[in-house]
Amino acid sequence: MSTSSSTTTNADLARERASASFSPERITNFLDRGSPSSTARRREIESAVIADPSGIFDQTDDAYASRTELHVRALGRMVRMVELQRKLRVTEEEYEWIVDAVGEDLPTALHWIMFVPNIRTLCDEEQQKYWLDRALNYEAIGCYAQTELGHGSNVRALETTATYDCATDEFVVNSPTLTSKKFWPGTLGRTANVAMVIARLIDGGGVDRGVHNFIVPLRCPHSHRPLPGVEVGDVGPKIGYNKMDNGFCSFDNVRIPRFNMAARFAKIIPGTGEFVAKELSEAAKRINYVTMMYVRSQIIYESGKNLARGCTIAIRYACVRRQGFVSESSDEERQVIDYVSLQHTLLPLLAAAYAYRMVGKRVLLRLKETEAALLLPDTAVTKEQISDLHSSTSCLKSVCSKLASDGLEKARKCCGGHGFLVSSGLPELIGTYLQNPTVEGDNAMLHQQTVRVLLKILPTAAQLAKNGQANTGSAGPWEGTDCEYLVRGAAQILSEVAARAPAPPLNIGSPADLLDLQVLCAAHRRRASHLLLGVAKELRDAAGNGEEGADSWNGALVQMARASTAHATALILDNFRDIVDHPNDCLGPKEAAALRRLAVLLGVHGLETDLADFLEGGQVRPADTGKVRTAVKAALHAVRPDAVPLVDAWDFSDFRLKSALGRFDGDVYPAIMAACRREPLNATEPGPGYAEHLGAFIADGRRKRKQKEGGVVGTASRL
Amino acid sequence: MSTSSSTTTNADLARERASASFSPERITNFLDRGSPSSTARRREIESAVIADPSGIFDQTDDAYASRTELHVRALGRMVRMVELQRKLRVTEEEYEWIVDAVGEDLPTALHWIMFVPNIRTLCDEEQQKYWLDRALNYEAIGCYAQTELGHGSNVRALETTATYDCATDEFVVNSPTLTSKKFWPGTLGRTANVAMVIARLIDGGGVDRGVHNFIVPLRCPHSHRPLPGVEVGDVGPKIGYNKMDNGFCSFDNVRIPRFNMAARFAKIIPGTGEFVAKELSEAAKRINYVTMMYVRSQIIYESGKNLARGCTIAIRYACVRRQGFVSESSDEERQVIDYVSLQHTLLPLLAAAYAYRMVGKRVLLRLKETEAALLLPDTAVTKEQISDLHSSTSCLKSVCSKLASDGLEKARKCCGGHGFLVSSGLPELIGTYLQNPTVEGDNAMLHQQTVRVLLKILPTAAQLAKNGQANTGSAGPWEGTDCEYLVRGAAQILSEVAARAPAPPLNIGSPADLLDLQVLCAAHRRRASHLLLGVAKELRDAAGNGEEGADSWNGALVQMARASTAHATALILDNFRDIVDHPNDCLGPKEAAALRRLAVLLGVHGLETDLADFLEGGQVRPADTGKVRTAVKAALHAVRPDAVPLVDAWDFSDFRLKSALGRFDGDVYPAIMAACRREPLNATEPGPGYAEHLGAFIADGRRKRKQKEGGVVGTASRL
Repeated sequence: MSTSSSTTTNADLARERASASFSPERITNFLDRGSPSSTARRREIESAVIADPSGIFDQTDDAYASRTELHVRALGRMVRMVELQRKLRVTEEEYEWIVDAVGEDLPTALHWIMFVPNIRTLCDEEQQKYWLDRALNYEAIGCYAQTELGHGSNVRALETTATYDCATDEFVVNSPTLTSKKFWPGTLGRTANVAMVIARLIDGGGVDRGVHNFIVPLRCPHSHRPLPGVEVGDVGPKIGYNKMDNGFCSFDNVRIPRFNMAARFAKIIPGTGEFVAKELSEAAKRINYVTMMYVRSQIIYESGKNLARGCTIAIRYACVRRQGFVSESSDEERQVIDYVSLQHTLLPLLAAAYAYRMVGKRVLLRLKETEAALLLPDTAVTKEQISDLHSSTSCLKSVCSKLASDGLEKARKCCGGHGFLVSSGLPELIGTYLQNPTVEGDNAMLHQQTVRVLLKILPTAAQLAKNGQANTGSAGPWEGTDCEYLVRGAAQILSEVAARAPAPPLNIGSPADLLDLQVLCAAHRRRASHLLLGVAKELRDAAGNGEEGADSWNGALVQMARASTAHATALILDNFRDIVDHPNDCLGPKEAAALRRLAVLLGVHGLETDLADFLEGGQVRPADTGKVRTAVKAALHAVRPDAVPLVDAWDFSDFRLKSALGRFDGDVYPAIMAACRREPLNATEPGPGYAEHLGAFIADGRRKRKQKEGGVVGTASRL
Repeated sequence: MSTSSSTTTNADLARERASASFSPERITNFLDRGSPSSTARRREIESAVIADPSGIFDQTDDAYASRTELHVRALGRMVRMVELQRKLRVTEEEYEWIVDAVGEDLPTALHWIMFVPNIRTLCDEEQQKYWLDRALNYEAIGCYAQTELGHGSNVRALETTATYDCATDEFVVNSPTLTSKKFWPGTLGRTANVAMVIARLIDGGGVDRGVHNFIVPLRCPHSHRPLPGVEVGDVGPKIGYNKMDNGFCSFDNVRIPRFNMAARFAKIIPGTGEFVAKELSEAAKRINYVTMMYVRSQIIYESGKNLARGCTIAIRYACVRRQGFVSESSDEERQVIDYVSLQHTLLPLLAAAYAYRMVGKRVLLRLKETEAALLLPDTAVTKEQISDLHSSTSCLKSVCSKLASDGLEKARKCCGGHGFLVSSGLPELIGTYLQNPTVEGDNAMLHQQTVRVLLKILPTAAQLAKNGQANTGSAGPWEGTDCEYLVRGAAQILSEVAARAPAPPLNIGSPADLLDLQVLCAAHRRRASHLLLGVAKELRDAAGNGEEGADSWNGALVQMARASTAHATALILDNFRDIVDHPNDCLGPKEAAALRRLAVLLGVHGLETDLADFLEGGQVRPADTGKVRTAVKAALHAVRPDAVPLVDAWDFSDFRLKSALGRFDGDVYPAIMAACRREPLNATEPGPGYAEHLGAFIADGRRKRKQKEGGVVGTASRL
């Protein structure tokens, strides 16, 4: 690794590396867009950050700084990163690499993630020219202000208003209630000087035209002070992500020119104040829809990377750490990685990290391809294809970010007490990650969006079943989509039900039969099909019982989450199989084999985790469950020897991991102690609080004892 | 509630309370040791803390303080608490209440939890007199220094040595390596002036006598500076519990008098340095063993209380918060508590909170009774009864603290974005709680301790099976223990296997059949028995394959965790049933009925959660799984109307919850905004970092645009 911090390496880690069954560097290349040159470029960028003479990127002492100081440092790092970015001519495609290298909650993050893309999507040409000219050079730093103190993702319930005033040709932006304050937007609190505000448009005739987007200046471009009528601030400390200034904001009848209403989809006629919704082509509408899926897809992709960071720390440390004797009579302690219970937690997480990154990359690619296809005249992209993308990104965002956040915490617990230390790197990694299950559609709610689409495939499935063509017939509009297998799977099950045939169980002669990726993928697909039919049945039964639509929907939410999770799981595993079946050029047979072992582990561990579903669906017979559990142990055993090489392949620098436990050289104990010694509580002897509280308290105890003993009693000051 | 902070209450919460099916006050009394007078006393103590004129207990601004400042404040609160404790004559039994009221990580916590009890257990009479005289008045503030930088719970691997020097009649305490530094003990870093150090005793003949306990002064009793040869400090910031000074410490040949070796079990003969292990009666040994179980039992008990705090916040807020329309055509938003998916997460956690507190209380009571019984001449307490206690406390500690920590995070996620705010109270609650799955035996490892005991019941079970007396015969030494049901359950299953009879499935005619607590308890007991036999089989099979003992044990760890978890689950549910079947006097029939609905929910939700086990064991047929899921929905539906009264009954004050979301009056939004306005980042306009970084950056962007536009270019300072 080019970025290791020491030249000597812990003997256990060295041995783990020496016995790698493949070349980690080749997998590094694969992860870096598939070529050694891209790895080289990524390392070049990362090295520039690490070696930056300003030293501003060194986060060693961040653990001891106040939140204010952290925010200030983050601003400084942001400015310096932009300078480096320009100097190194970092392209938009390479932006991920410099952001990763800096490894910081950049206060301008939402400017790039939300503000600029929304200008591009929602503004007309003239507006784009004006605002992009200002935004791309950070003269205008923007945020995206949608959620309100009392309102989350239910956009229709937002209360902020923008009322058109015919007399002045302006909009009056107002926060009528406490609950209408904008609340949570990142970058809003202290950094942004302008916001894309989502507000209810009241047209010149006083008619509420629903929510639209308005660009509202927040702060003076020269003094950065809030403009009249704007109250804006930071929401205060959070469980993580504390360098970012998530903000609140309210508007007391703030006037903005008509020009500031995003005008690509709708506009107000000056003077009359008439509302005009523009006609957009179907393709244009779909492009916008696709654009909105990018943020969720980015979360899917990043879930893999973040989980891999946690696995890197936990797995390296588990090789260095020894605990418990190899046997009763031995004085040699066991590397904790060799406890099967620990492997059972950590290795499936490592498999998931690879899988999520791969499926995230695939989704991002599909979005890009779909966008391009939509630009073609007479585009062939159908509405089902768009729905399918929406369905897949929704369930994958939910499943991947849930497992990544839960998984990071599990990995932390595998580090024992030392995982509790900020110097382990895990608390910050986890705290910062924890927003992902909630933002961009709460994970618990997203499953509904997936199921709403999936239910639409059932008529086609029923038709195929009726025709006896589950495998051979056309999946109609779902052909070639992520849902296609569900059409066929549901058709197959419906055929069996119609024929009163029992579900065909997996053929598990021995546990080894379950270590076949083809078999595992088929099993997960069947499970998803079965659960989807279960949701449909539950909704049908509820309607049959006379429940109202919203109530029957509500009653089925738990089952929807199961079905949507199963769909995501099948997609993740199928994609992993696709990659190891058709390895990219930079992967040799050994690398593909190592990845295949991970995919098998992910699949068979998933089978064990959700065993009830497979038993319920008749795929696994109760008598075969022991074989499933034995197969999981075999899959763990197969991955174990490559555990360290498989985390090394991610090529996270020590600089980025910021972890005493996850160091490449495994020299963890001096690193822990070095961090302890920087703790400000240790700066004086006696420590803070002794003079105010502790000293007199101890002296008082001594006096009490001496009184009791009848001895001479000193005063507190003489003791 | 006596401690609510406002006189008007949110209308939704008021309605929830008005429709309570029972009196929350009666359940409050039940939780407070079963009498209205104990509730009154608890409230008296709590009120004294809240109303303390020093104002020192007000934690409102803790969210914005540095760690150093927090530690100092905590020291001040500790001193003031001791003053109040003396003034109010708070007894040892009432100590929990004043600590709960203060709601603070007290830097002296380990003095009380570990140091003082260990003095009592391990020291002889003379030592006890000396050290308790000093400890009880805080002249000596102690900690318990066992774990080392490179060594956790494997006591035999500790490296610190205490070598007897015949010439001076002293011990020389030494830390020979980096990994031998004491690391993690609470109170050690800055507060303690003395430590109970666990070290390898090297006797006068140079023989290693294994680990023993030594009382080592750390700091000068007058200046509080570290004594010569002692390096001591705080371990630095952690994921939580940051007011506590967990510490590290090393000894460079520090000399202590022979008197400082804890001498109840062993001693060194002066001069010769001969090692003498004392003969203790079996009963005395068992008392010590029981003493060691108190800390784990306290964790079990506290897991319920902490989880209940999280549930109180999340459930109250879920009633106040509205999100998503009741129907497509409605403008009314739904209380989020009415989403079945949210109920499915939160209400079983509430049931668990009650259950864990109850089982914790029972375990604490059993320890006390056992201790008393052991003091009787010719005590009837058997070694199996002690093993049983050890087994139960181990698995319960693991299961309760795991679910409480996971559950608190789930409850936080149910609060959406606002649960991310420190002002929600949840980040501190979670961060501070997170140590519990790791301390006092890592949760993942504790299951082994349980299983080691449980395996011992199998010969008795086999005998009963052979005699056809699973239900009627004596369970031998396990009669009356927590394991008794396992003896009978395993015997029953062994009989069925011998007779080649299939397992009798639960009789589920309709989902309602599963809402019977008797049935649910029996199902969970059967599951545990089945899984225990599974572990035994796995170990037997591995031995049959020629695996070595340690390897076959290692290979069965995952199944051990399942079996031990099932045992704990059965104990928790059985105890809950016992309480609702025989309600304490202060519970009327309505209160008992409300608690029974919670117990049913816990049981049936557990059945759903671990459905695979029940399918595998043949208790649930695949065709009946839908009924299980329907039964869970029915159980949620039954508990839902009492959700708020059931959290109110815990009677947590707003002062203690420290939560803008969990306020008794439900007035959450002004509370959130009030917290935002205290954030130091908001103190100035423009904010911190503008002058250093942001101002020039924005001005530079403006200059770049103007250059591009060919306009007049100003200097940065003129913009």
